[in-house]
Amino acid sequence: MPLFEGNMSAFDELTESFSRLPGIGKKSAIRIVNHILKQDAAEALRFAQRLSSLHEKIKPCSTCGTWTETDSCPVCSDPLRDQTILCVVEQPQDVGTIEAYKEFRGVYHVLGGLIKPLEGIGPDQLRIQDLISRLHNGTFQEVIVATNPTVEGDTTALFLNKIISEQLSGKNIKVTRLATGIPVGGDLEYIDKRTLSLSFRGRTSF
Amino acid sequence: MPLFEGNMSAFDELTESFSRLPGIGKKSAIRIVNHILKQDAAEALRFAQRLSSLHEKIKPCSTCGTWTETDSCPVCSDPLRDQTILCVVEQPQDVGTIEAYKEFRGVYHVLGGLIKPLEGIGPDQLRIQDLISRLHNGTFQEVIVATNPTVEGDTTALFLNKIISEQLSGKNIKVTRLATGIPVGGDLEYIDKRTLSLSFRGRTSF
Repeated sequence: MPLFEGNMSAFDELTESFSRLPGIGKKSAIRIVNHILKQDAAEALRFAQRLSSLHEKIKPCSTCGTWTETDSCPVCSDPLRDQTILCVVEQPQDVGTIEAYKEFRGVYHVLGGLIKPLEGIGPDQLRIQDLISRLHNGTFQEVIVATNPTVEGDTTALFLNKIISEQLSGKNIKVTRLATGIPVGGDLEYIDKRTLSLSFRGRTSF
Repeated sequence: MPLFEGNMSAFDELTESFSRLPGIGKKSAIRIVNHILKQDAAEALRFAQRLSSLHEKIKPCSTCGTWTETDSCPVCSDPLRDQTILCVVEQPQDVGTIEAYKEFRGVYHVLGGLIKPLEGIGPDQLRIQDLISRLHNGTFQEVIVATNPTVEGDTTALFLNKIISEQLSGKNIKVTRLATGIPVGGDLEYIDKRTLSLSFRGRTSF
């Protein structure tokens, strides 16, 4: 539904910006821009203001790497958090996801990605050296690797386990991984073979 | 997945702006803001720039009411368009939708809404007086009412038919309505009763 191709460059440009966002296609983007046009100009200006100041206001925490407005982030600067357990996650937003459950009381370390040899992302592009330094200087007893159970997530977890046991053998740090299995409310009938296989291997006693 | 409730106001505010857009829920909005944070700040600034200048650059066409960067809009200012057929639509974006099919060669009139007594929207809130003036001063022979086949769309179409026949009886203007029926590729089995009933009433001979 291009309004008037070649004429409405302001419309088309904003549509293009919206359609680059995850989960928004061309049609949704057009619908959104139409919606914004119908609204007050002041509303759009406030939206634009929030958008333009985002990167300025939110930076990665210098300790764990998650996004924060204050440095260190609220988790790293909280004296009540358990400094013996470190949870390693792929992306800054994973910290938010885990924090929302209010169960984990340790601290975090954001890798900033996963090892993906095909895309040329090796350990050097990730915050792995920072992780080693933190473990070296800290009081950590356990590292929980909370990367997703995908090929890249598993590869990265194995690599971390190897490098931690090699470089920090004197510190006696336990490396663990989140359990893989059938999600609560899931159905055996619809579970893939690999998940089923891993849920057998990781079975627990009562 | 609030990142850190109460702390990341810049994050939460932008999430709120995104989640107000049509088709974007809270979770999608968080995903989008995370995506923007991962991108270059320059990209976000350009996005914000496009957003803030939208209302300034795009205005309703003074003739037909659709959105345009130039006044009159490309359709109204095109000397090759048929000035004897006027297509009445609800919203500015409907013009874009119909233009995309490149079949209609007449001109448009945007009502800016439909008659909705329950929401307090009567004929005076719509561009109906403008429509009457255009028909009065113009060379129009037919008005195609292209409002959606909903209760409000039908009510508005009936109202337009009545007012045009009353106020412009001397001009002999034909008022028509887009056909309602089974869409191409549709299936009788899944068609609602009212559509089926209307497709019987509006049946055509070969």
